[in-house]
Order: sequence, then C-alpha cells, then structure tokens
Amino acid sequence: MISLLKQAKAAKAAALIYQEQSAKVRQDLLLALASALEADVENILLVNAAEVKEQAAAGLDPVLQDRLRLTLERMSDLVSGVRQIATLPDLLGQELESRRLENGLRLKKIRVPLGVVGMIYEARPNVTVDAAALCLKTGNAALLRGSRLARRTNHYLVQIIGRVLRGQQLPPQLVQLVADDSHDSVLKMARLRGYLDVIIPRGGARLIQTVLENATVPVLETGVGNCHLFIDQSADPQMAIAIAINGKCSRPSVCNALETVLIHRQWPREYVLQLLTALHEAGVTLHIDKTLLDLAPAAVPATEEDWDHEYLTLELAVKQAADVDEAIAHINRHGTRHSESIVTADSEHAARFLQQVDAACVYHNVSTRFSDGLALGLGAEIGISTQKLHARGPMGQEALTSYKYVISGEGQVR
Amino acid sequence: MISLLKQAKAAKAAALIYQEQSAKVRQDLLLALASALEADVENILLVNAAEVKEQAAAGLDPVLQDRLRLTLERMSDLVSGVRQIATLPDLLGQELESRRLENGLRLKKIRVPLGVVGMIYEARPNVTVDAAALCLKTGNAALLRGSRLARRTNHYLVQIIGRVLRGQQLPPQLVQLVADDSHDSVLKMARLRGYLDVIIPRGGARLIQTVLENATVPVLETGVGNCHLFIDQSADPQMAIAIAINGKCSRPSVCNALETVLIHRQWPREYVLQLLTALHEAGVTLHIDKTLLDLAPAAVPATEEDWDHEYLTLELAVKQAADVDEAIAHINRHGTRHSESIVTADSEHAARFLQQVDAACVYHNVSTRFSDGLALGLGAEIGISTQKLHARGPMGQEALTSYKYVISGEGQVR
Repeated sequence: MISLLKQAKAAKAAALIYQEQSAKVRQDLLLALASALEADVENILLVNAAEVKEQAAAGLDPVLQDRLRLTLERMSDLVSGVRQIATLPDLLGQELESRRLENGLRLKKIRVPLGVVGMIYEARPNVTVDAAALCLKTGNAALLRGSRLARRTNHYLVQIIGRVLRGQQLPPQLVQLVADDSHDSVLKMARLRGYLDVIIPRGGARLIQTVLENATVPVLETGVGNCHLFIDQSADPQMAIAIAINGKCSRPSVCNALETVLIHRQWPREYVLQLLTALHEAGVTLHIDKTLLDLAPAAVPATEEDWDHEYLTLELAVKQAADVDEAIAHINRHGTRHSESIVTADSEHAARFLQQVDAACVYHNVSTRFSDGLALGLGAEIGISTQKLHARGPMGQEALTSYKYVISGEGQVR
Repeated sequence: MISLLKQAKAAKAAALIYQEQSAKVRQDLLLALASALEADVENILLVNAAEVKEQAAAGLDPVLQDRLRLTLERMSDLVSGVRQIATLPDLLGQELESRRLENGLRLKKIRVPLGVVGMIYEARPNVTVDAAALCLKTGNAALLRGSRLARRTNHYLVQIIGRVLRGQQLPPQLVQLVADDSHDSVLKMARLRGYLDVIIPRGGARLIQTVLENATVPVLETGVGNCHLFIDQSADPQMAIAIAINGKCSRPSVCNALETVLIHRQWPREYVLQLLTALHEAGVTLHIDKTLLDLAPAAVPATEEDWDHEYLTLELAVKQAADVDEAIAHINRHGTRHSESIVTADSEHAARFLQQVDAACVYHNVSTRFSDGLALGLGAEIGISTQKLHARGPMGQEALTSYKYVISGEGQVR
C-alpha cells in the first residue's frame, strides 16, 4: 500500500504542473470527465451494486446503504453536475485588485489555486466525483479519503478520473484516493502540514472534532448543524408549522435539518398544540421542555443535553423562550453557527434576530433547509462552512482558491 | 489574577453588545482614543522609560530594548495611525452580494465582525494600540497577550483604552490584556474554542509553531519570512546589488528582510564578486555555497540548515542555481510563503517566477522589504499572513471580518 505521505508528495508535484494550465484545459478536462462517467455508467452501477449488496449482507444500516447507493438518476445528476462545473466562469488568474503606486510599483492581487485539497468524507461515493470536479475546476489537486464502506465504488470512480487525466496529458496524481483508509489515516492527514494546503472534514461531529483537535493543516470546518427555528409571538401559525415540518421532516439526516424549535411564551397555546400535533403526526419524537409537556402527551421530557444534540433523525427538541432576546441567546449558546431561522410578523424582531444570531445563514420566514449552494443560487458546493475564517456557509469555487500579490518594478528599494 | 477563560467570556459578551453599534460609534471611539493617547503621551513615555530601564538593568538584549522602547516619534506615529484607522471606510454591514431568487427569496451576503480576536505578540507595545484600533474599527473585541517584558507599558495603554471605551458608553472588556502572561497562557489561549473566533500569533517561528501544534481555535499564521532573492542570468548588476543590500541590511530583524540570495550559474563572476564584496562591506556574514566560496574569502561554508534559516540578523545564505526552474524549486521547498523576488531582464523568466513561486508576495525587480500594508498602499495591517486560507499577505481591515448570508422570504419551504 502506498503511504499517505507519498501520495501527498505526488499530489503536490502534480498540483505544481497543473497550476500552469489554462482555463480551456480545465474546462476540456471536466467535459471529458463528464463524458467518461456517462460512458461508463453501467459498470459504475454494477460495481456499486455489488458493494452495496456486500455491505448489506454484512449488516450495514439501511440509511447508510442508501447513502452508499448510486442509481441511474443519481449518476445522471452527478454527470450533469460535472458539466455544470465545467462551464462555470473560471476564477483563476482573476485580477482582484490592480493599482500603480506613486513610486512606480505595479501591484496586482491575483486569484490562485490553494494547491492540494484534502477531503475526508463519509460513505457517499458521489462526493468523490463532486469534490474532484470542484478541485480540478479551481486548479487544485485532491487527496480524497473516503469511507471504507465505499472503497470499491470510490476506487472505480477515481480510476475513471485518472484515465481522463492521462487522456488530457495531465498527471493522474491530481486526484487520488487515500489508499490507507484506517481510522489512523484521518489523524495522519490532519498533520500533513507543508503537503496539504487545506483539509476539509465532511461528516459527523466526531470526525470534525478529531480533525480539529489534531490538525496542523488549516481546516475548513463543515457540516455540523444544530439548527433552530424560533417562532415569535406574532408568527403566522400556518407558516410556522409548514417551516417546522419542512425543516425536520423533508430530509432529517442532513446538516440543514431542524433540531430545535423555540416557541415564544406568548404564542397562542392553540397554535402550539397544532404545531406539536402536526409534528407528532409526521412521526417526530419530541424532546420537550417541561413547560409545554402537557400539550404533547407522547413527548419525552427534554434534558440539558437535548439543546446541544444534532439528532439527524425524526427527533426534535422543543423549548419555550421568554422573548426574541432569550431565543437569540439560546441559539448563540447552543447553535453550531450553521443555519438559524425566525418566523415573525414583527420586522424589528426579525432585524434583531438576523443581526445578532451568529451563524453562516440566518433566515426570516424561510426553512433552514435552503442552506445549500444550489438552492441559494450560489452554485455547486464542496460543503457548508460553519467557521468564520476564509469561507462561511455554502462553499463553492471561491472557497477553493486563494490569492497572491504580484508586484513589478524597476529596481525599487525601501 | 483573573482567569483567561473569564476574560474570554467577558470579551465575547462585550463583542455581542459592540456588534450592534454604528459606524459612527466606531469612528468616534477611535478618534477619542487617538486624542486620549495624545493627551497622555508624557505619562506613557514615563511608564515605558521606567520599564525599559528596569529590563535593561536586568540584562535585556539591546535589540529587544529597542523594540520595547516608545519614543515621542513612535507615539506620534501611533496616534496618527489610530486617526487614520478611524477615518478608513467602515466595512461592516457592507452588502457583498444581493440577489432575488426565482422562488422569491431575497438573499444578501453581509460583512460582519469576526467576534473576539486573540493576539499573541512580542515586546513591542505599539502593537497593543495598533491591534486594538484595527479590532475596534472592525467591530471586534480584542484579547491581547503581550510579552511580559512590556507588561507595565501594555497595562498602562490598555487602561487608557478602557477609559476611552467607558467614556463612549462601551464595555471596557472589548480590549483586554491577558492577565496571565505565563508561557502556559499561550497554549490555553490556542484552545479557547467557542470563545475566540481567531487567534493571531505574531512573532518568531517557535511561537507560531507552538500555536499551530496546539490550536483548536482557527489560526491566522503570520510573519515567518525566509525570503529569497533570485538573481537571474540577465540581471542588471547595479539593480541586483541594490535590492540585495536593501533586502538584507535596511532592517534585518523584520519578516520581509532577505535571508537567501540565489544566483544564476551564468551570472558573470565579476558581478558575483561585486555583490559579495558589497554585502561583506555592509557587515553581512555570508553562509555560502561551496561553488562560490572562493569569491568570498570571509564567508562561512553553508550547510543544509542554512537554506531553512530565518536569520533576522546581518547574516545571509548564498547559493548558485542552474536556472530559474531550479531557483523556483528551491524557493518552493525552503521558503515560508512570505515574500520572494526575482531580478531579471527576461520577461518570460519573470512571468514564470511570479506564477510558480508559491508566496503571499512575489516581486520582479523590487526589494522584498515592500511587503507591508502601508508600503504597498493596502492600509494599516495587523500582520502579514503566510497562509492561503482567509487572508494572504498584509492583513488589513478585511482580514478581521467575515460575512453571513441573510435570507428573507414569505414562508418558503423546500
């Protein structure tokens, strides 16, 4: 098995070659990749089906089986996603600033690739293609550490990418799957300072915590979403209920799903009852504040831990809040800076919430489920950043670039 | 002594209050700060003079004494620096993007403060004021961990800042000096995740390494500069010599000073001789590659370690390079991504160097000493970033901000 360090060195060498290529080369490469994936769909599905079957036989949870599974429809989305990325405007070489100083120096701020991007992710093999495509579009090499559950599918996909790279006279080391998929390789990757320019952990809170605790490589933190909805005193009941149901039930396993609903103490009790009943009927287990427990007989009493819990299932914490300020304080204390929403008819309350809540995406009368690059019209994304440095919220092309200052003169000294 | 955690919590609470203030409040605050410093110059200089004297008596290195010392001129620069920052355009609330989606959602990308900025720095007390001013201008709280050598001066300065804050009805906890200035407090600060939004170590390679190895708070790495000058075959000798002398001798202790000169193998030997003689006469100790040793009799033979050494003194490593590609490879291997320069009359070589060298600032026929916010016309800076994420090169106001997405609708669900 090739060592992680060797793979990282090869990625860096490949990135140096790749950074000199033109926008045309990058576009042609991605179009060729889309075609190659399309041409090979049958085999990809066969390899994947065998892997899903094997994992199912070994007892893999049906939810994870679903994540692992590629279908004709998913493949078609994947291929059209790569085509879309191919035709996005190319950002590299962009002049972000250009000026001439009094002393004659000419200064330009130019957009450049990051270099080598390390990704650690879970069992969804489509991430392998998405991440590779976004990295290649932005002039980067990608070192991909997928889940061992998807080992064979990922391997097959990366082989296709490698063939396409070779076909375009580019080094196949631009996109590599980390050969060592032991737990240890996560820690090793996080410490490849000088080889990786960034590491993006995409997965559960534990994975992200492990990377953060151990990384010497700069981290782009993504994806943990303990998202809240605050229903203000003046909230329209139909709207509040629709947003709560959508936030919790439309796709409970994703990071922009709702995990806690805060309800203004003066929101009419009949509305509260309607809301809790609707959630219950939608199959949601409610972990509920004792002040509201009598309105939801099938509910579980909430504990302090519930306020910090990202369920990712059909469970939801529910709590009363005295007013918008208490709700904001609760969210700033327990939230993960991902996506937070208020339903209110009071524009002053909305403004205060939107300003004071510290999160990547803050919503007024909208479901948190919109936190997604495509849904917000921001384009394909490599993850949703919950940190404040570099990139926040949905991370598209820009997040995979940096810049440099280029200064030319005629012998100026200082 | 108040604990670091308590200080960080107080900073966070203060930042939440401060983030709601207007641009006018921030400007008035900084103008008041400039006036207060001006009014108190005599006492500041007295406190500082006593501290310098005490440290000198305790045997402090004259170089460090100089860093620690405030003079009337330095104070006047400091005060006018604060006034300049006060009148810079205010970035907060800036709409970086604004769009209406087909489904009616209104999306805005708004510039916001980072929150609480942690700074760790060495014995220059002017950094205390500079950093506080830039953090306050950008809506942030600052937790300042200065050197114990400057403890009394820093304390006095922060007291003035606190009085000014109170005078403007703002919490004095917005700018705090870390009470615990033990070595341990650096490590503790680096792990204040959830309280500090960023930590900026500004100092030597060891400090930065310690922070990087231990941090769970996102780091903005600054200041280690193993800067190179590559003298190409076609380099004009007068220009090359002037840039080398300026790079090494004008201020050897700073991060943009030159540490290694690479010389094209075919640059005429008489020029090499002139260059080495000029450096020698300027008092520079040369650590020199054996291929050139015979041209510089007073020099020391270079070892492998010299290529990675940031001297910060009148010492310089000198090495031959076969061509521009070898020079680029050497710099990408041994450089610290800070500032790198080429002297050449060959525009193709210049273009290749500027593109392929991986550094925050790349120069053609210019001294690396220009890597400075003010010298490059980029405004006051809080340090020079050598990383690629978030901010690269001189970090001004923008580097101390983030953004959030604010999305409003009428009940949209997904």
